[in-house]
Amino acid sequence: MKTERRDGKRTGRKGKSPDLPVITLLTDFGTADYFVGAVKGAILSVNPRAVIADITHEIAPQDIDAAAFTLLASYQTFPAGTIHVVVVDPGVGSTRRPIVVSAGKQFFVGPDNGVFSYIYDREPKYRTYHATKQEYFRQPTSTTFHGRDIFAPVAAALSTGVKPQAFGPSITEPVRLENSLMPVVQTNGRIEGRIIHIDRFGNCITNLTRDVLKGQPETLLIKEKQIGSFAEFFSEAGSANEPFGIWGSAGFLEIAINRGSAALMLGVKRGEPVVLQSA
Amino acid sequence: MKTERRDGKRTGRKGKSPDLPVITLLTDFGTADYFVGAVKGAILSVNPRAVIADITHEIAPQDIDAAAFTLLASYQTFPAGTIHVVVVDPGVGSTRRPIVVSAGKQFFVGPDNGVFSYIYDREPKYRTYHATKQEYFRQPTSTTFHGRDIFAPVAAALSTGVKPQAFGPSITEPVRLENSLMPVVQTNGRIEGRIIHIDRFGNCITNLTRDVLKGQPETLLIKEKQIGSFAEFFSEAGSANEPFGIWGSAGFLEIAINRGSAALMLGVKRGEPVVLQSA
Amino acid sequence: MKTERRDGKRTGRKGKSPDLPVITLLTDFGTADYFVGAVKGAILSVNPRAVIADITHEIAPQDIDAAAFTLLASYQTFPAGTIHVVVVDPGVGSTRRPIVVSAGKQFFVGPDNGVFSYIYDREPKYRTYHATKQEYFRQPTSTTFHGRDIFAPVAAALSTGVKPQAFGPSITEPVRLENSLMPVVQTNGRIEGRIIHIDRFGNCITNLTRDVLKGQPETLLIKEKQIGSFAEFFSEAGSANEPFGIWGSAGFLEIAINRGSAALMLGVKRGEPVVLQSA
Repeated sequence: MKTERRDGKRTGRKGKSPDLPVITLLTDFGTADYFVGAVKGAILSVNPRAVIADITHEIAPQDIDAAAFTLLASYQTFPAGTIHVVVVDPGVGSTRRPIVVSAGKQFFVGPDNGVFSYIYDREPKYRTYHATKQEYFRQPTSTTFHGRDIFAPVAAALSTGVKPQAFGPSITEPVRLENSLMPVVQTNGRIEGRIIHIDRFGNCITNLTRDVLKGQPETLLIKEKQIGSFAEFFSEAGSANEPFGIWGSAGFLEIAINRGSAALMLGVKRGEPVVLQSA
Repeated sequence: MKTERRDGKRTGRKGKSPDLPVITLLTDFGTADYFVGAVKGAILSVNPRAVIADITHEIAPQDIDAAAFTLLASYQTFPAGTIHVVVVDPGVGSTRRPIVVSAGKQFFVGPDNGVFSYIYDREPKYRTYHATKQEYFRQPTSTTFHGRDIFAPVAAALSTGVKPQAFGPSITEPVRLENSLMPVVQTNGRIEGRIIHIDRFGNCITNLTRDVLKGQPETLLIKEKQIGSFAEFFSEAGSANEPFGIWGSAGFLEIAINRGSAALMLGVKRGEPVVLQSA
Repeated sequence: MKTERRDGKRTGRKGKSPDLPVITLLTDFGTADYFVGAVKGAILSVNPRAVIADITHEIAPQDIDAAAFTLLASYQTFPAGTIHVVVVDPGVGSTRRPIVVSAGKQFFVGPDNGVFSYIYDREPKYRTYHATKQEYFRQPTSTTFHGRDIFAPVAAALSTGVKPQAFGPSITEPVRLENSLMPVVQTNGRIEGRIIHIDRFGNCITNLTRDVLKGQPETLLIKEKQIGSFAEFFSEAGSANEPFGIWGSAGFLEIAINRGSAALMLGVKRGEPVVLQSA
């Protein structure tokens, strides 16, 4: 009886999987329409024991970079076995591939459009599969709503213990964003990075992490502006209108100003290069 | 011991019900206030094993038609036994009846104001009950917040296995919206429908489904405008500013334009008649 | 075997706790960023059986009073054992204390900045503990995101059965808001209260409850305006532009006008004194 229970419904049909597997949702659907509800239903129809956690549905429409950053900044807090469904999918209905990624003991399901790019950078042992097996898709499969008809049921199948390789052939070169997450570290203490995200407060988040830094940060150069002030807390920072560097909660060096938008003040957009000099 | 477990807490006290029953929420509460939280608490107090799935809380205030469409477009993805709570309830505190609907192997709880109209159209074997048994209500029962005090606890009781008929007497003529979901199919290939929803992009969703169509769509007439172009994908569609028909993900023919609002361009509001000629 | 199961994963390691413990979230994070996702992951990493219920993430930034009211208006609908995480935390990174509160058979986790003030007023047998034991924190613990690194894992540990006193020393004088929730009841039927919340419709919610009232309300005085009309339902109320009193669904007397904002019409802000005369 014990064996029956172990192999039964509660642990997934095809392998060991969590009793209550977590499936997160990260989309640009907004929350006013029926889309989020339809995706949740499609998941629960395949696995009623899935625990659905909304990360956000308010990625700006079709903003793949913003989705990639938001996923990067949140996935590591989730337990092993978590399945992240990302639907920011301007190419839905075209030839872009639906994919399943296995990386860092977690899984990722979504379109092959670069949205998992930072996961590949952060988890170099990742594996990617082209989800082609229609038996795991919702039938009939629409051409306009793969979130509901492909990504949701594939994620739910994964959560029951189906292995990533069961969904289709391996892919060796998934689509990546133009720029890598990783900064370029020079030998003279100079580190070249860029702005990877601007949050709604106008804070400019760089791709610079503590572990690439030798010693203490000295100056940060952005758009010919030299920033020499680095704070531990927001409240600690100096005079108004003077930008400063701060290690943000996502693990990256951010450029902020007190009570204002650093992005606006500096005229910075996503992608802007930065150079950090440490000593 | 096995029997004890089967009849015990995990499967509901009064009948067979899912181990982790799904209760969805569809309201016009917005998400800034305490209303959604209070409803969730009221459900979990009755059944801590209920799995709550938000469909949306952003139906425009008191827009019963929009709630009816949103429910229609999402309920079918949910598993059998799902309980949908809909609270768009301009008549709260008046004599409008709280009802429980059993239809299509799912349940629906909310006010008898037409919000389940499209479910009745889609699931002709539906049954409706007037929820009068106060023993299932939260005490004291307010006159202003039936979402928390009536619909939530009734839904939660349903999720523990209480039968729909236990909540009160059967109703044979629940309130319906003025127009049926079903289009009028003429013998000459002419199908008469209407716009049942306009989404936030301005796409105009008709009540025309593939199964009422004989052959291929030829022209769609709306406000004396003839539309002769039908697309499979949004990206496939023709020149800018030219409306086209497309089978949307909710299963209905929609009128859209590329990168713009068809509703604005055509001056269309919900309820507008359409005529589809097929060949 | 039965014992093993009872003492095992499903009931928590360190005491009796619900099989599927409820953890609510009430923050000013908004829902567009990665913050909510990161908090959910941090909870589920500690206790994958936690049931997370969003109350709201749309408290106005740093509005401690609004968070205190929203918590007050929703906590009582939740079952015993529920853990409420409140993150409205202008002092994050400073010396303000992270606390665990045990009150009314529920638990509350958040910053010691007054956000639980109304809980203390409503549940006088509350106990408060300073969460100092870093073994329950997420490592490394940031200085900027205690929602993820302290409050979430502490709440999750509570949900596995860790006792409140295990997180650190008892606090006897937690921070409270300037004004108590409780109105001042005079002997002559005069009750002195104030506006504790203004909702998004402009309804002005007082701290006056039915149980402090002797007899029927006669007049409500606010800003030298006398209100003598009291309604049971919103729809019942009198002429336009004439404010009236109504017992709101949160249990308090509210001042409203039909189809308009009482707060705007009366020029009322939160904190405004009111005097109720009953007879």
